[in-house]
Amino acid sequence: MAESPITLRSQDFATWYQDVVLQGDMAEPAEIVKGCMVIKANGYAVWEVLQRELDTRFKATNHQNVYFPLLIPQSFLRKEAEHVEGFSPELAVVTHAGGKELEEPYVIRPTSETIIGHFFSKWIQSWRDLPVLVNQWANIIRWELRTRMFLRTTEFLWQEGHTAHGTHEEAVEEVLRILDLYAEVAEDVMAMPVIKGVKSRAEKFAGALRSYSIEAMMQNGLALQAGTSHDLGQNFGKAFDVKFQNKEGQLDYVWQTSWGVSTRLIGGLIMTHSDDKGLVLPPRLAPVKSVLVPIYRKDEEKSAVLEAAHRIATEVDAKVDDREGPSPGAKFFHWERRGVPVVLELGPRDLAANKIVLKRRDTGAKEPIDQSALPGKLTAALDDIQKCLFSRAREHRQANTVLANSIGEVESILRDVSAEKGGGKFVMAHIKDDPTCDARLKEFKTTVRNIPLVDEFDGPAKCIITGEPVAHRAVIAKSY
Amino acid sequence: MAESPITLRSQDFATWYQDVVLQGDMAEPAEIVKGCMVIKANGYAVWEVLQRELDTRFKATNHQNVYFPLLIPQSFLRKEAEHVEGFSPELAVVTHAGGKELEEPYVIRPTSETIIGHFFSKWIQSWRDLPVLVNQWANIIRWELRTRMFLRTTEFLWQEGHTAHGTHEEAVEEVLRILDLYAEVAEDVMAMPVIKGVKSRAEKFAGALRSYSIEAMMQNGLALQAGTSHDLGQNFGKAFDVKFQNKEGQLDYVWQTSWGVSTRLIGGLIMTHSDDKGLVLPPRLAPVKSVLVPIYRKDEEKSAVLEAAHRIATEVDAKVDDREGPSPGAKFFHWERRGVPVVLELGPRDLAANKIVLKRRDTGAKEPIDQSALPGKLTAALDDIQKCLFSRAREHRQANTVLANSIGEVESILRDVSAEKGGGKFVMAHIKDDPTCDARLKEFKTTVRNIPLVDEFDGPAKCIITGEPVAHRAVIAKSY
Repeated sequence: MAESPITLRSQDFATWYQDVVLQGDMAEPAEIVKGCMVIKANGYAVWEVLQRELDTRFKATNHQNVYFPLLIPQSFLRKEAEHVEGFSPELAVVTHAGGKELEEPYVIRPTSETIIGHFFSKWIQSWRDLPVLVNQWANIIRWELRTRMFLRTTEFLWQEGHTAHGTHEEAVEEVLRILDLYAEVAEDVMAMPVIKGVKSRAEKFAGALRSYSIEAMMQNGLALQAGTSHDLGQNFGKAFDVKFQNKEGQLDYVWQTSWGVSTRLIGGLIMTHSDDKGLVLPPRLAPVKSVLVPIYRKDEEKSAVLEAAHRIATEVDAKVDDREGPSPGAKFFHWERRGVPVVLELGPRDLAANKIVLKRRDTGAKEPIDQSALPGKLTAALDDIQKCLFSRAREHRQANTVLANSIGEVESILRDVSAEKGGGKFVMAHIKDDPTCDARLKEFKTTVRNIPLVDEFDGPAKCIITGEPVAHRAVIAKSY
Repeated sequence: MAESPITLRSQDFATWYQDVVLQGDMAEPAEIVKGCMVIKANGYAVWEVLQRELDTRFKATNHQNVYFPLLIPQSFLRKEAEHVEGFSPELAVVTHAGGKELEEPYVIRPTSETIIGHFFSKWIQSWRDLPVLVNQWANIIRWELRTRMFLRTTEFLWQEGHTAHGTHEEAVEEVLRILDLYAEVAEDVMAMPVIKGVKSRAEKFAGALRSYSIEAMMQNGLALQAGTSHDLGQNFGKAFDVKFQNKEGQLDYVWQTSWGVSTRLIGGLIMTHSDDKGLVLPPRLAPVKSVLVPIYRKDEEKSAVLEAAHRIATEVDAKVDDREGPSPGAKFFHWERRGVPVVLELGPRDLAANKIVLKRRDTGAKEPIDQSALPGKLTAALDDIQKCLFSRAREHRQANTVLANSIGEVESILRDVSAEKGGGKFVMAHIKDDPTCDARLKEFKTTVRNIPLVDEFDGPAKCIITGEPVAHRAVIAKSY
């Protein structure tokens, strides 16, 4: 991939995003497969860090990884009425295999509740078999009309957790435990502040009783749904006949949950932190935290600089960019676009003075420091970058969160917002959780993102549409 | 999954294998999706250890993980003549998506040389862009007629490495580097001895110049191809127009390699080490290396035993099975079937004498040892189990490897061998690498497994079929 200029955010946010993805070696469009992308080395390395952070937490909360088939008999989807209605338009269908037309077509999983429901019914007979807590790392296909790399692609990678419980209360606990886990990874690892809340009934997962989400604000003020956790009630239990004998000896349907985050998180990461120079990665998510670029002009300088570079890099676990071809300037540019949090520069003059230059990706600040102080200074700089990125993102969200007390006000704030032009806001308003209210927002391409679990504003008031009492404000925004 | 008896190996090896897979919580058939399985918790945990062992080695040899689309335009496969011929009968085809019939169908990847060839042609222009060294962890579909869990399933999980080089010599170096890496993981981690060699031309990968493999012997004497590494020559370079300007300024096609191992390795692992009691896992591959089962009858014993159990387990990183329901006997049985290398037993009498009982899964030997000696003894036992499993498997292979000097002899040794009945051998014979010779072996359902890179026998002699001179003996066997 040749290096090209990056469009300014202020000029066209959507094109800026695409440029950052391409120039950061994160992904490129796979135009020959509709709406797909190739996840490139830097993008996949970030995904691996995210996987590790999530997977460790899933295991610590007693979930086990398993793997179910990619293909699902088409008839399975029809067993849950809302589910098939929600997913039918997006299915990819396998009609031929092994040189023959299949008697019953398979769909490529758009999510796995149905096939997992089938196996739960085989595995679960008694309360002793509960809870079942499984997760799978998998690829998913949903045939989307409008796609953007990472944010919405026909194929994407994700994890999907599926659990079965003996009571609704336990299932809801699980749903909220996972929502907290997702928020922790988003905020502490990705440095991306999120709002935890319940989706409106109109926006819930097809087949769920209730859906919960974490919602983040991008730099253009649009919302991104970054993770969802669903209370499935007994809907899939009934559809797939997942019954168990409870402690009292009676047969009951299990209470299920499902929850997932995907490669979409990487899109959120990029749109939260990156700047006009390219990708910015928070240190805890960066596959390479620091790179040392050795600088020398004359051959007699080279061996001394390189020797010191490798010695210092080993001490602080930095990567040395000792490639022969590119100039130091080209190397700085290379790592800057790939979002490496800290670049260290070491030239003959630094060497003579026992110095090294530390440059932060987030602020661009350069500081010459004593080599002996490097381990402490580098750790401190990485910690500080992590904190600053989170604070900056949170401040940005606060600065772009507004209260509105009428539907006209909401519309005037959000009507002309778009992914390209930006100017988005989180509009906090009292709105009844009723599909008719959601429909009114749809008129100007806006949705209730979620109803926060914690009210940070002013408690109950009348709905801006129906006038009925509402407990507290919801987040209304344009979104990806 | 209820616990049922395990069929004896001597009675029916194929049924024994299936029983071990089911009872070891490794996988179960997904009968509703042709030839597929669900990989269950213990099976997936073993796959995760294998992934980590392989992935660390790929990264240490400068390979980067990436991800290409699942779907491949059907026309791509036709670009390489041998490739399409080899894979056409096994393809699953997506003809409809998003509610419409597609203009050009997609196939689900049976392997990714073609789609990767397409992107290599975009990424590679100059010798400066080489080598390209990428790997992906992915799911694959090949519509197989006869399937067995892990060994051959319609869908399987694997890694596929794909590299491009400026010279054939470099490509061959890569092919052999990976073959060594696979052999190292097979032998040092899985304790599964393998023979490295080149496949006969008749058995090579569809589209390769030459294929290399590691071949292992199962307990029934059948061969299992456990990993392959392909020298693709310039075949895909020409099919996908992957050209580069070499240092001399001339345009040339790249030299490519591809290589993969899959969840099939888990089948090989099971058939190498497991016994009539169930799964046996080598310690380096075991997700849980040791489990401590506390034993108490009276309530007053319970708290002292459990307290000591948790204290000791923490010291040696063992898992405590403190479940309330099952008896100690049921717990021993549980972990035995799941292949845990060492089980520790701690009862009130052991506690009073500062003892603990160490039981090895491989030999069944039980030894009471001083609690203070446990850390050293446990490490030693795990090391010894790893070594013993490897030695035993190698001795089994040696005892079942025979030399043959005529085709009649080969046929009489192998004719009646089957996966169910066992009795398989590795027959070492001089045979010319010519498809007519492979065809003669096919008459009694036998193949050249590979031609070893290192001759451990008697050098050159005449081919047992054509009488022409052959450098050294090849491995002939029945196989999975």
